[in-house]
Amino acid sequence: MEYVCIEQGGVASATDFLAAGITAGLKRSGALDMALIYSRRPCVAAGAFTSNLFAAAPVIYDRGIIAGGQPVRAVLVNSGNANACTGERGLRDVEATVAHLANLLQIPGRQVLVSSTGRIGVPMPMDVIKGGIAKAVDALSEQGSQAAAEAIMTTDTRPKRLAVELSLGGRRVVIGGMTKGAGMIAPKLRMQPPQATMLAYVTTDAAITPAALHAALAASLDQSFNRITVDGDTSTNDTVIALANGAAGNPVIEEDTPEFEVFSRAFVHVLSTLAREMVLDGEGVTRFVEINVTGAQTDEDARRCAEAIANSALCKTAWFGADPNWGRILCAAGYSGIAFDPARVSLSMQGAPVVKNGLDAGTPESQLAELVAAKELRIDLDLGSGNGQFTVWTCDLTYEYVKINADYHT
Amino acid sequence: MEYVCIEQGGVASATDFLAAGITAGLKRSGALDMALIYSRRPCVAAGAFTSNLFAAAPVIYDRGIIAGGQPVRAVLVNSGNANACTGERGLRDVEATVAHLANLLQIPGRQVLVSSTGRIGVPMPMDVIKGGIAKAVDALSEQGSQAAAEAIMTTDTRPKRLAVELSLGGRRVVIGGMTKGAGMIAPKLRMQPPQATMLAYVTTDAAITPAALHAALAASLDQSFNRITVDGDTSTNDTVIALANGAAGNPVIEEDTPEFEVFSRAFVHVLSTLAREMVLDGEGVTRFVEINVTGAQTDEDARRCAEAIANSALCKTAWFGADPNWGRILCAAGYSGIAFDPARVSLSMQGAPVVKNGLDAGTPESQLAELVAAKELRIDLDLGSGNGQFTVWTCDLTYEYVKINADYHT
Repeated sequence: MEYVCIEQGGVASATDFLAAGITAGLKRSGALDMALIYSRRPCVAAGAFTSNLFAAAPVIYDRGIIAGGQPVRAVLVNSGNANACTGERGLRDVEATVAHLANLLQIPGRQVLVSSTGRIGVPMPMDVIKGGIAKAVDALSEQGSQAAAEAIMTTDTRPKRLAVELSLGGRRVVIGGMTKGAGMIAPKLRMQPPQATMLAYVTTDAAITPAALHAALAASLDQSFNRITVDGDTSTNDTVIALANGAAGNPVIEEDTPEFEVFSRAFVHVLSTLAREMVLDGEGVTRFVEINVTGAQTDEDARRCAEAIANSALCKTAWFGADPNWGRILCAAGYSGIAFDPARVSLSMQGAPVVKNGLDAGTPESQLAELVAAKELRIDLDLGSGNGQFTVWTCDLTYEYVKINADYHT
Repeated sequence: MEYVCIEQGGVASATDFLAAGITAGLKRSGALDMALIYSRRPCVAAGAFTSNLFAAAPVIYDRGIIAGGQPVRAVLVNSGNANACTGERGLRDVEATVAHLANLLQIPGRQVLVSSTGRIGVPMPMDVIKGGIAKAVDALSEQGSQAAAEAIMTTDTRPKRLAVELSLGGRRVVIGGMTKGAGMIAPKLRMQPPQATMLAYVTTDAAITPAALHAALAASLDQSFNRITVDGDTSTNDTVIALANGAAGNPVIEEDTPEFEVFSRAFVHVLSTLAREMVLDGEGVTRFVEINVTGAQTDEDARRCAEAIANSALCKTAWFGADPNWGRILCAAGYSGIAFDPARVSLSMQGAPVVKNGLDAGTPESQLAELVAAKELRIDLDLGSGNGQFTVWTCDLTYEYVKINADYHT
């Protein structure tokens, strides 16, 4: 293995990174609701943000910072309020948040990023935010990975974090990360501009050029957050931020080098593991489903087809019922809007043939019913019309999802 | 009023139309599962069918008949089996069905249409079909509207049918219809090629040219079946068929005449009433929601935006919870893929202002909570960016929907 997992790893595992998770008071429950990531050294930063037109105030703000190419030292994340659809006031609140944190950390304001998740359309309670910032700065520690991962949760049931270590140029390099998801999950992340409220943060002590970090993040999205969907809703707040502070002392990683490839594989592992964990912890999820579409005319066609299946309420409820109803899968492919020949379509579940050339492949239904009862279901759909392919990770649609989202507001 | 409702009306209300609904034995429950509509005179016919690539065998067959412009005398409809994804065998089964029915009715085979709804991917049990056809022919009657409407039901909880009468050229003209829906409802009907398994049949004794009947059906779809969505899934079997037998003896209706306009208004009333009934009887529905999007750059943009909201799992569960969570509505508009200025968006619910210029309009949440608890909810979203507009009729997403669709197969 080029990289190995670090026990209890997270965003504070890389050298010279600290993290905190505290209760500011934004959640009525009194649970942790504010996380802070801080680097003792300036970081190269890369970001990807929601493509939703109603991008939240912190997303608008962060895009500007990332686009400016400045070094970054800190990321403040709050749950409990999305600061979305809050207009000019929302932007002023982000600026006040940044100024307050920068002052306490004694760093320039332009080195601070902010993320928010929670209710849309409610102004930020700035007194609560400012009190929380002071607590978070005091709580910063090398042991802060777990608390930070807890503090960014909304309807998540468990914190999602990990870190790996690898060797580059003779030096130990660490890549750590954390994420939250649960609902409004169907990221369509754009580099420098993602979807759902999913938030993800990756910290590394690797020395890497800004262009190489940007390239590593861009290349990883289709293998991680952009291949997942819980409910097809793309949030106003989706954010993925990667920070690299160079503390590992490795020769600076440039694009298109063997070191870049090694780094990128470990980086993709961290992001894809977090993305997969996010689906497994999606709202009310009982079953993880991987959909591999191949044989489309283009990769984009394969993506549209896989997403139509993944977001079909009928497919998702069938998976909940452990029902091998393959007609619903073909039906969703048929209305996805892409072109293919129905008579050349083949489908398998857990490797067993289900449909061949558009017709029932003859596997006994009792056998299919056993296969689809698995906690993790793999569906392979070959459209037989080209070389385009895409993989989506999704989940079932359950009573619990309906309950969580019918009751969230009240 | 130009037209008035007929008590107990349906597809057998117009002169010289008969109908039947019988138990062929396709449903395990023993419920009615085969309907037959028959006209004593040859009919002008128009049809609209699913845009799903996996169009079912009867859809493929009917498209050919409608495209040929022949007169039509009979429509056979079965529930319990969709005859979709059944390949060449499915098409041969349709042909055998047509031949058997034509023989018993002593009419040419090319005057018969066939529709199916139910499970996908299972061959038609032709012995059952043939036995059912004999029973259905025997049962044809002028009192058959109710039984026919019951026989086409799948997960529907009640039959949906109506008829209206109007005066044209001094003659009494009747337009009757029936529909079924419940799940896989998001028709994207194409004339001469609709979506969900929704089936709808309209019969009239008006004398009308084929071109005028086609035009009346085409113009009515965006005001009826193409504006509804239950779950966003477009079926392999969606079908709307209109038959006009001329028995009323009115002067033949031509396009672009005052008579055509009068006929069309009554025709739209029948289709839109059936479409609305279909949503109200959607799987597990507790709340009907009308979404009016205005101010889009184009009507097509308005449609995409309205459908994104209508198909959002988060909006639908909020409606189930009677939750005035407007952030989810704006969020769905924001990821719908159309262009508009978020700062110019206004939203109202039941006529009460909710969002103005992208921000909370200040209506107290307690007041909004009361408004959205209505059984029928009206949402008006003005994007402020043009003159494009579209209306969608949809419903909430409930425990019962999940239950019905997780259990349907078994």
